[in-house]
Amino acid sequence: MNLPRTATTFAPPVMEARRWLDGVTHPADRPLINVSQAAPVDPPPTALRQAMADAALTKDDAHLYGPVLGMPALRDALAAQISTHYEATVTGDHVAITSGCNQAFAAAIATLCAEGDEVILPTPWYFNHKMWLDMSGVTSVALRTGDDLLPDVETARALITPRTRAIALVTPNNPGGVEYPAELVRAFYDLARDAGIALMVDETYRDFDSRTGAPHALFQQDGWQDTFIHLYSFSKAYRLTGHRVGALAASPARLAEVEKFLDTVAICPGQIGQYAALWGLENLSQWVAGERDEILARRAAIAGGFDVLAAQGWRLLGLGAYFAYLEHPFAASSADLAPQLVREAGILCLPGTMFCPADDISGQRHLRIAFANLDVAGIAAFYHRLSGLDLPR
Amino acid sequence: MNLPRTATTFAPPVMEARRWLDGVTHPADRPLINVSQAAPVDPPPTALRQAMADAALTKDDAHLYGPVLGMPALRDALAAQISTHYEATVTGDHVAITSGCNQAFAAAIATLCAEGDEVILPTPWYFNHKMWLDMSGVTSVALRTGDDLLPDVETARALITPRTRAIALVTPNNPGGVEYPAELVRAFYDLARDAGIALMVDETYRDFDSRTGAPHALFQQDGWQDTFIHLYSFSKAYRLTGHRVGALAASPARLAEVEKFLDTVAICPGQIGQYAALWGLENLSQWVAGERDEILARRAAIAGGFDVLAAQGWRLLGLGAYFAYLEHPFAASSADLAPQLVREAGILCLPGTMFCPADDISGQRHLRIAFANLDVAGIAAFYHRLSGLDLPR
Repeated sequence: MNLPRTATTFAPPVMEARRWLDGVTHPADRPLINVSQAAPVDPPPTALRQAMADAALTKDDAHLYGPVLGMPALRDALAAQISTHYEATVTGDHVAITSGCNQAFAAAIATLCAEGDEVILPTPWYFNHKMWLDMSGVTSVALRTGDDLLPDVETARALITPRTRAIALVTPNNPGGVEYPAELVRAFYDLARDAGIALMVDETYRDFDSRTGAPHALFQQDGWQDTFIHLYSFSKAYRLTGHRVGALAASPARLAEVEKFLDTVAICPGQIGQYAALWGLENLSQWVAGERDEILARRAAIAGGFDVLAAQGWRLLGLGAYFAYLEHPFAASSADLAPQLVREAGILCLPGTMFCPADDISGQRHLRIAFANLDVAGIAAFYHRLSGLDLPR
Repeated sequence: MNLPRTATTFAPPVMEARRWLDGVTHPADRPLINVSQAAPVDPPPTALRQAMADAALTKDDAHLYGPVLGMPALRDALAAQISTHYEATVTGDHVAITSGCNQAFAAAIATLCAEGDEVILPTPWYFNHKMWLDMSGVTSVALRTGDDLLPDVETARALITPRTRAIALVTPNNPGGVEYPAELVRAFYDLARDAGIALMVDETYRDFDSRTGAPHALFQQDGWQDTFIHLYSFSKAYRLTGHRVGALAASPARLAEVEKFLDTVAICPGQIGQYAALWGLENLSQWVAGERDEILARRAAIAGGFDVLAAQGWRLLGLGAYFAYLEHPFAASSADLAPQLVREAGILCLPGTMFCPADDISGQRHLRIAFANLDVAGIAAFYHRLSGLDLPR
């Protein structure tokens, strides 16, 4: 008897980490610093909340089933934004709205893979990608990165087998924070196209990329939709995590397959969230620019204040979007260190062991810090607590 | 090379049927009668819309990630309602909230089945169940019913193999409308328990059951959670289809497995929808009772007016909840008849062929009518159009 699908994977890391908080009290002068989850801690701007309230009160269709692939106006609006951002021409029939970006990944995988197929994931990987592949009967083939956290194309090429169906990148990266250079993304596209497999690029954090202009040129390639699958989330840009609105861009033929999956697992995306995303696209570009500036300021605070940790043997491997990826100097594995940090420093973060295969011991040295949740003062407090740790090395 | 998962199943029937409307115009004096989808056509009551607007404006957590298994207050409130309705004692730790009842089914299957396993479904079946099983690599074993649309326990027993993991019932039934007698549900429970498999019961339409009191006694059985998985939807009761809120009740151990699936495909249910469902549970029981009365009146109109069709050779096989299941008297297969009805009678409904395996020719004689979408006058018009058909027999 084979294991049921959920028994082939692990418990959700974010929920597991929350359980480390159980029974731990945090003194009033040292409240918990929660850098475990990449999620806005504040609600959306008031005008967007008002737009959602107005939709609830005045739009009857906000309460009723909508099209499986999403609201046409939202598909068109996102296509237009993609066209601008990537300096390309993308239309609404290449875009589907999903109940969050995780669901976009799951749907895309369902259109690509059968039992026993393989997908290449750079490590450290995003654990929800690994979990979905596990539950789909798909082998996650780890593409190890070095200290720069950038995957190597030739190493990837050597991992391709007849069962490989896709390579899935995340840029700006979760958990590593690193922004993949456009040329690197393009090289992976060429590799995937030549191998006849898909290149999935999860760009959940694109709105906080420190670079300006198109982060890659894939949408500009003729026939991009035969190879490239773009994944996006409205959760971070407009602080809509509780409304579950994501998207993917692909060929209309693939979206017809995506429709089967989404019809069965969701029927349609939540309508209020779609109204919110549409309102955001139409009204919040300046506001998002300000949010990006704030996150870039926090990123600068992470980089600028790191010296004190560096002097103690810490290393900053990756930094960007919501995340810093740290190498700690202690003897303990990060799997033990992370719950210890809750108790001894009032810091909740995820260990590198949650982002790589069990046989990759590098994860034991790493911690993922969702620094974007902290303001500059919070970052100073965070560094102060880490630098005060006195643990065996 | 095996087919990718989505290629192993068919296109969503509701979306396919919508495409039959393309290019067809409906005269003003004969507007389209859409009985294709079981969905409220009106928005929720104003007070509930106001409650959603208030949540959007005043509850910060309505916009942020919530627990994977749903809002604790909603889990508790649904558990309390289940306890009352089924005359049993169910607690919130036995309840999970999902993004719709389809997702509850998908999550439960992921906790039960591996590639190549089997699930027994009475036919006519609910097509989204079949689609999810296809995409999960699980064989749907058809349990044929007779003209009463009720599955037989001994026939089911003979279909159980070492690969069988569950029997999935829907009561009141979609598509058949029939309300399964409590003793029948109990007999299936005993069969499943004795065979060491799960009994899933999708009770999406329970709020419109014509019977009063507990529709079955499964929640009253000691150790029910070792066998029984209850599926529920808030979509119909409170007209929340566009917000995607469903639920399942099962053992806490199974919910820990469900959590893996939901974390990966949804992260959490939409928060506004959860606030709406909670408000509905707390405030709308009288209103739902009125909705039920209205649907029962419509049901009576379907039953009371059927004579004119019966005289033409039609048969009413099932009637209840949102659905009537009709046998037509014509020579054509329902697969051809249904699109023809759009053009010639301005009626959109789904053919029986969408609810059974291709080798079951009984589906060619059947039409599913989501009558609850029609008021009594609409039902009269619907019957008038059907009785005016002049088609080969």
